[in-house]
Amino acid sequence: MSEQKKLSIIAFSGDFDKLTAVFTLGTGAAAVGYEVNIFFTFWGLDAIKQKKGRAFIGSNWLTRLFGFMMGGLSATPTSRFNFGGAGPKIFRSLMRKNNVATLEELVDAAKVLGINLYACEMAMHVLGLTKEDFIPEVKDVLGVASFLKLSEGGQTLFI
Amino acid sequence: MSEQKKLSIIAFSGDFDKLTAVFTLGTGAAAVGYEVNIFFTFWGLDAIKQKKGRAFIGSNWLTRLFGFMMGGLSATPTSRFNFGGAGPKIFRSLMRKNNVATLEELVDAAKVLGINLYACEMAMHVLGLTKEDFIPEVKDVLGVASFLKLSEGGQTLFI
Amino acid sequence: MSEQKKLSIIAFSGDFDKLTAVFTLGTGAAAVGYEVNIFFTFWGLDAIKQKKGRAFIGSNWLTRLFGFMMGGLSATPTSRFNFGGAGPKIFRSLMRKNNVATLEELVDAAKVLGINLYACEMAMHVLGLTKEDFIPEVKDVLGVASFLKLSEGGQTLFI
Repeated sequence: MSEQKKLSIIAFSGDFDKLTAVFTLGTGAAAVGYEVNIFFTFWGLDAIKQKKGRAFIGSNWLTRLFGFMMGGLSATPTSRFNFGGAGPKIFRSLMRKNNVATLEELVDAAKVLGINLYACEMAMHVLGLTKEDFIPEVKDVLGVASFLKLSEGGQTLFI
Repeated sequence: MSEQKKLSIIAFSGDFDKLTAVFTLGTGAAAVGYEVNIFFTFWGLDAIKQKKGRAFIGSNWLTRLFGFMMGGLSATPTSRFNFGGAGPKIFRSLMRKNNVATLEELVDAAKVLGINLYACEMAMHVLGLTKEDFIPEVKDVLGVASFLKLSEGGQTLFI
Repeated sequence: MSEQKKLSIIAFSGDFDKLTAVFTLGTGAAAVGYEVNIFFTFWGLDAIKQKKGRAFIGSNWLTRLFGFMMGGLSATPTSRFNFGGAGPKIFRSLMRKNNVATLEELVDAAKVLGINLYACEMAMHVLGLTKEDFIPEVKDVLGVASFLKLSEGGQTLFI
């Protein structure tokens, strides 16, 4: 088969460790020549939100959406051992100490490597978000059918 | 290739948001002609339990299984920001407000679209469930090998 | 296609129920002739750690890594209804009572069935682990690109 190999990821989770997995897999695949498509939906949309003068991880759409109900989040938690918000910091510190790319660096690498970033249309409707809320690298807003078509013939992961 | 495209989903999670993702992906794929197979296992079995006079989301097998240990659950929680049970209500409200199908509507759509619903044999053994505990739309009870055979040649997701 | 069928699993979660799913799917596939590759990363690495005189489930790398911050974990929790650590025990008891293989038995079966176990290079760097920290059945330490290459042409799941 002469076709380019393909990896597609449905990035559903907003957890720091899972988003790290999304971008580690994506950049690792892109680095060896795969076409990589990432489809951000639900909590995963957090990863492609505009920074608005804050650190990347701090721009959480739930801050605004559920802001009146909560004190205000400022960090994407890890899925386990979040230590009241310190989990991601510990991770980032361990990653720096061990010369592993941090989540922020991985997102930058994704842009450089030409990974295709897509936002889920339905989740945007639910949450009242528009394309302008996302970083300009987001290529398009897609529905499920369009994403499935894009990911045909490759490996697809739900993270 | 003249074969029908195929999407298979292993629905492991019982979280409201993840079950919504299962049915959104499934109905989206079925709507554009995919064969869709959903294999419910562990917590995901909750989605295909008989209603027994309750709202769909309220029929939680853990209520009976672990009933003596717990006060009694009445809602499938979201995986994040559950707000002591209010999370699914907020989601459902947002979905209605924004004209997005709710989980209940998605399950109905799955039936109409002819999506194949399967229950995991092993998880049923662990939990002491029988086929009679499920909605009649459940096509069959399958083991892992049979499900893998069904899902061959298509995309498979674990949610 | 005369090639052997293939199932590849990225085992990211360290939750007892999800690890059970990893090994149930893996052994089920291997039993019907699939080539099975499991790539342990992040919390999933816990499943392939040396026992060091403890029960399998009790050897948690976080005990050492985050030991100074926590009282000390002694069990892999379930992803829901962990009951302060009793969740896995309840599961294991239900599995025994209903003649379903427990997680420990599934890991043993994985070895017997010749399932390929791999450890994620990057996660090991982050956590300061070496190949010697794992059970001898771990075949190799791999990066993302190598794992993707191995899993080509089959079904790949992220759990």
